[in-house]
Amino acid sequence: MKLLEERIRKDGKILPGDILKIDSFLNHQIDTKLMEQIGEEFYRLFKDKDPSKILTIEASGIAIAMDASRFFGYIPVVFAKKTVAANMAKNTYAAKEHSYTRNIEYTVQVSKEYLNENDRVLILDDFLANGEAMNALISLCRQANAKIVGCGSVVCKTYQPGEQRIKDLGYDVEVLARVSHMSDDGQIEFE
Amino acid sequence: MKLLEERIRKDGKILPGDILKIDSFLNHQIDTKLMEQIGEEFYRLFKDKDPSKILTIEASGIAIAMDASRFFGYIPVVFAKKTVAANMAKNTYAAKEHSYTRNIEYTVQVSKEYLNENDRVLILDDFLANGEAMNALISLCRQANAKIVGCGSVVCKTYQPGEQRIKDLGYDVEVLARVSHMSDDGQIEFE
Repeated sequence: MKLLEERIRKDGKILPGDILKIDSFLNHQIDTKLMEQIGEEFYRLFKDKDPSKILTIEASGIAIAMDASRFFGYIPVVFAKKTVAANMAKNTYAAKEHSYTRNIEYTVQVSKEYLNENDRVLILDDFLANGEAMNALISLCRQANAKIVGCGSVVCKTYQPGEQRIKDLGYDVEVLARVSHMSDDGQIEFE
Repeated sequence: MKLLEERIRKDGKILPGDILKIDSFLNHQIDTKLMEQIGEEFYRLFKDKDPSKILTIEASGIAIAMDASRFFGYIPVVFAKKTVAANMAKNTYAAKEHSYTRNIEYTVQVSKEYLNENDRVLILDDFLANGEAMNALISLCRQANAKIVGCGSVVCKTYQPGEQRIKDLGYDVEVLARVSHMSDDGQIEFE
């Protein structure tokens, strides 16, 4: 997605530890017009898969899923949670995720009420690096016997194992901006 | 907002501890059509205030803010974070929030880059009970010298102090569904 690559080149910052910071428009401050265009692009890529539900993970994934949902005719969005509140059912599917940018392990959960064998799930998230978050979302779907119709990520780093890891599990993966190299002087290259 | 009240009456569940569970359509699984209508209603209520930015808090607030933003002409959404990732600037405004449904205290943060004295901020969130989250968001705006043009909540419990607390600080508060009573047999009443 050319528009997104240009935006990452313009506003992305490279932080120590090979971290790409794009929180001025994607995951802290959000450019909602760009997010709509991202949603439309996911629709273009996955419309033939006829998803009945979008599964994502809090927090940044929610913005992506919301906009995509409209293009798919307002299919429900479910977001997996990293902490469990008192108002959440005890009856959940759970999976582990090790966060790269936070360096802690989360238990990712979704209520059994909102994921089941009748769902055709499109999994969407913002970042695909080592594939930990997406792998956890896949695990939740498998536990629920839900059908995964595709996996989409806004950004991936092609030199990290995430994308291949998900493909090796047998799923379609679509990525909107594929970062192939980030250099110390701030240059970001795309595949 | 009649449509929302009807939906809460139909799908809301009352849990022990006076907790209203509406996570089948608002804050775990999301009815994105309803969320769009909620966004449009916030636009109707606050359009004369001419906000330049929407501030909310992860996670559920993001969905509300995204849809509202479009009606306001795609003004940026900023969401305050409850945990800090490695890709987040160290330079943040911070405030404390005690979560009612989780019974823990969060440090709520926003990067100084994304909130400043030129912003006309509309604060939006899903639930207003004791007002802890909204109070923390107000504190972040005050630290940034940003102008708060209004505060909106999807649901409030009128018998809890949150709404009055925010009004006492001098801010406009608009609530879409005002729960006045929840009974043990599952009845939910609105003001």
